[in-house]
Amino acid sequence: MILSIPEILSKKRNGEELLEEELEYFIDCVCNDKIDKSQIGAMLMAFCLRGLTTKETVTLTKSMRNSGTVQQWDPSWKMVDKHSTGGVGDKVTFPLVAAVPLFGLKMPMISGRGLGHTGGTADKLESIPGFQIGVPEDRMRKTLDEIGCYITVTFGNIAPADRTLYAIRDITSTVCYAPLICASIMSKKLAEGIDSLVLDVKIGGASTTESYEEAEWLARKMVEIGEGMGVDATAVLTEMDTPLGYAIGNSLEMIESLECIRGNGPDDLEKIVAVQGGILLCGAGIASSQQEGEEMIVKTFKDGTALEKFLQILGNQGVEKQILELLRKGEYDKVFAKANHVENVSAKLSGYIEAVDAMAIGKSVVLLGGGRQLPEDPIDPAVGIKLLMTKGDKVQKGDILAEIHHNGKLSETLRKRIEDAFLIGDQEKPLKRVISVVRHNVATEEYDVYRNLR
Amino acid sequence: MILSIPEILSKKRNGEELLEEELEYFIDCVCNDKIDKSQIGAMLMAFCLRGLTTKETVTLTKSMRNSGTVQQWDPSWKMVDKHSTGGVGDKVTFPLVAAVPLFGLKMPMISGRGLGHTGGTADKLESIPGFQIGVPEDRMRKTLDEIGCYITVTFGNIAPADRTLYAIRDITSTVCYAPLICASIMSKKLAEGIDSLVLDVKIGGASTTESYEEAEWLARKMVEIGEGMGVDATAVLTEMDTPLGYAIGNSLEMIESLECIRGNGPDDLEKIVAVQGGILLCGAGIASSQQEGEEMIVKTFKDGTALEKFLQILGNQGVEKQILELLRKGEYDKVFAKANHVENVSAKLSGYIEAVDAMAIGKSVVLLGGGRQLPEDPIDPAVGIKLLMTKGDKVQKGDILAEIHHNGKLSETLRKRIEDAFLIGDQEKPLKRVISVVRHNVATEEYDVYRNLR
Repeated sequence: MILSIPEILSKKRNGEELLEEELEYFIDCVCNDKIDKSQIGAMLMAFCLRGLTTKETVTLTKSMRNSGTVQQWDPSWKMVDKHSTGGVGDKVTFPLVAAVPLFGLKMPMISGRGLGHTGGTADKLESIPGFQIGVPEDRMRKTLDEIGCYITVTFGNIAPADRTLYAIRDITSTVCYAPLICASIMSKKLAEGIDSLVLDVKIGGASTTESYEEAEWLARKMVEIGEGMGVDATAVLTEMDTPLGYAIGNSLEMIESLECIRGNGPDDLEKIVAVQGGILLCGAGIASSQQEGEEMIVKTFKDGTALEKFLQILGNQGVEKQILELLRKGEYDKVFAKANHVENVSAKLSGYIEAVDAMAIGKSVVLLGGGRQLPEDPIDPAVGIKLLMTKGDKVQKGDILAEIHHNGKLSETLRKRIEDAFLIGDQEKPLKRVISVVRHNVATEEYDVYRNLR
Repeated sequence: MILSIPEILSKKRNGEELLEEELEYFIDCVCNDKIDKSQIGAMLMAFCLRGLTTKETVTLTKSMRNSGTVQQWDPSWKMVDKHSTGGVGDKVTFPLVAAVPLFGLKMPMISGRGLGHTGGTADKLESIPGFQIGVPEDRMRKTLDEIGCYITVTFGNIAPADRTLYAIRDITSTVCYAPLICASIMSKKLAEGIDSLVLDVKIGGASTTESYEEAEWLARKMVEIGEGMGVDATAVLTEMDTPLGYAIGNSLEMIESLECIRGNGPDDLEKIVAVQGGILLCGAGIASSQQEGEEMIVKTFKDGTALEKFLQILGNQGVEKQILELLRKGEYDKVFAKANHVENVSAKLSGYIEAVDAMAIGKSVVLLGGGRQLPEDPIDPAVGIKLLMTKGDKVQKGDILAEIHHNGKLSETLRKRIEDAFLIGDQEKPLKRVISVVRHNVATEEYDVYRNLR
């Protein structure tokens, strides 16, 4: 069979399903510079407008994963990971990596940098003095063996096809097509050589999927693709209209994470972590049910073992003993950079907080200097917004709703925008964070959806 | 309004109609290197899959035309041109340019090179010793004034946007989308500064439009776009399952053209030329009806005036007097390169020729060396196929159907392919070349279609 990019383009343009070898050839051409950029752009647009079947998406994902190194680990290890589609105040990774490795599971975390209204795991960790994102490749195995977790950013030769395709998707308005989102996420995750994966698919105004239906469809696709590649994947669908927890901004989020790890976390954060951890423990046969797994995770926060594991992970990635000791004692003021100004936002009405606009809050933190508008922007770790109240809470006029931590970038317009993020009305609308779980039922070959977990 | 390529892409991806300024901005970016090639590829694919309305196509065409020089002529001149969508044995241009300028119309012809199974006007003319395609830009006006016609290939700064877009369409499988075909053809034609245009839209296996419906749709679109840009455009739909005339190959076609010009042309060729010329004469008010115009054109072949005009055009473009004299006398053997071998193809059955496969004949001539597979291939002007009989003719077993003129590239497989191009059966199916005419009826604002002209 003679493969040619124009013929593959023509086939997809006509709406036909592509063969495995055709998709593999496309990815091979992308990686080896045997394709014109105009052809990549046309192919991505044709994928979006003609669609990719699950079979095509699995093949594409596999080819993208295979475009680089696929990590190989000790076969006796149970390798797990989690991925979030991104939200505001999302700090689930930290309590999760503090708890899960305590049960023998290995977590080779590849995390991202923040861009736009969503923060990045790497940026948040770097608010801890001395923390180095990543460990040298030759120390990865030893770290997993002894500690069970490292946290890195994409490195070396992990799914290079995705890097090229992502850069082109970004400028051709082909980012938001679920099969391409799936392929991009899963190709990198699967290159880590994992056995199971828990996915946090956000729903709402500050996520990439605004409706429940859209998010469930994306979740099913990702679970299907995981299964198609021999990985036990489960998706948790969570609310992302409201910021997660109370802290938004790098240092503030790190502090809230540490509090969660010592058992004082906000309810919604602890619940997501428990559900995700419970799924991983149950999947690995360590807990007999997700419920039991959740309880095991929460126990590590209460008994101090999670905190010790987290400090061990930080110590392995450059944080000095003295800093670790301060963190152990909860003396955050001596560790984290503090903003020069803290201003309060007060309620102008009495009633219930019916909504806290996560997108507005996320974008405001970027404007305060806590996030990036462009990939090369510097980050101010000290700035952010700390909610004192959130969705569902009852307020009296004059109550303080939030603190704005800033270093001089708070304009009147921006302050107004933050105030307006709080919608106060007369209806009590409790925050429901974890909405449902989507998993593949191997017995029935169907996708079970468990709703209303909280 | 802030224009951005990703936003325009996103809009078209969602199926929205683009604004004039958005399409103009796209073309501006294409011409000034302010767009990534991946974005051009994605845009073209989105155009194909989401469609372009007539309004969008007119705007696109106008922007492409305006990307370069738009020729300006003496306002009293009646500037006309013709364009063919390309076929096998298509030599209509030569008799047409010999006849039409005799009535005072000006024809600034931009012709093409052959590629694939279709030949090119420029290549055919260059089989005449000394002929130079094109005249210097500073001599164009004088030539039109004194002779009424020159024949050139795209030059200088004529619709440069089309050159860039065409090169990308070619490798992204976005060539065959009617609005893009229209925009490409019309932008160049309209840059010539013409007042009216006759379009030859081919239908059948050796053309870009295989069905009548598709061809009529393309014809209506081109007529609409012409009207949208203030040009009187008419389309003639002609059969392209069967080679046009009897000669295929550069020198052979030139000889057949000269015979047509002196009144001995094949019926089907003379008919197309007469119809196209009649439309132009009638449109310019020189003939009172298309029918009268057709008769005026044919008369120039019979009375020798067309031959003199054609020789004048050749003389103006480098052909020496001695060669012109030989052509005047019909001593073609002394002018044109001859192939070293001529082999006959004979009928294996008695009956009627039900079809002569133009695509097979066209591709065979390319393999004989008379056309190009790649744009840089050299051309052998002497080789080709001369039909002695065509569709609708009655044959006896053993009759000679065609001569193959070759210089050693005739393999047994190729000879078989040429033989197989003739389908002999028991049904008499006369060749009907001119099928219909599509023109805009300004009075009714509708597109009138006149069928069955022959």
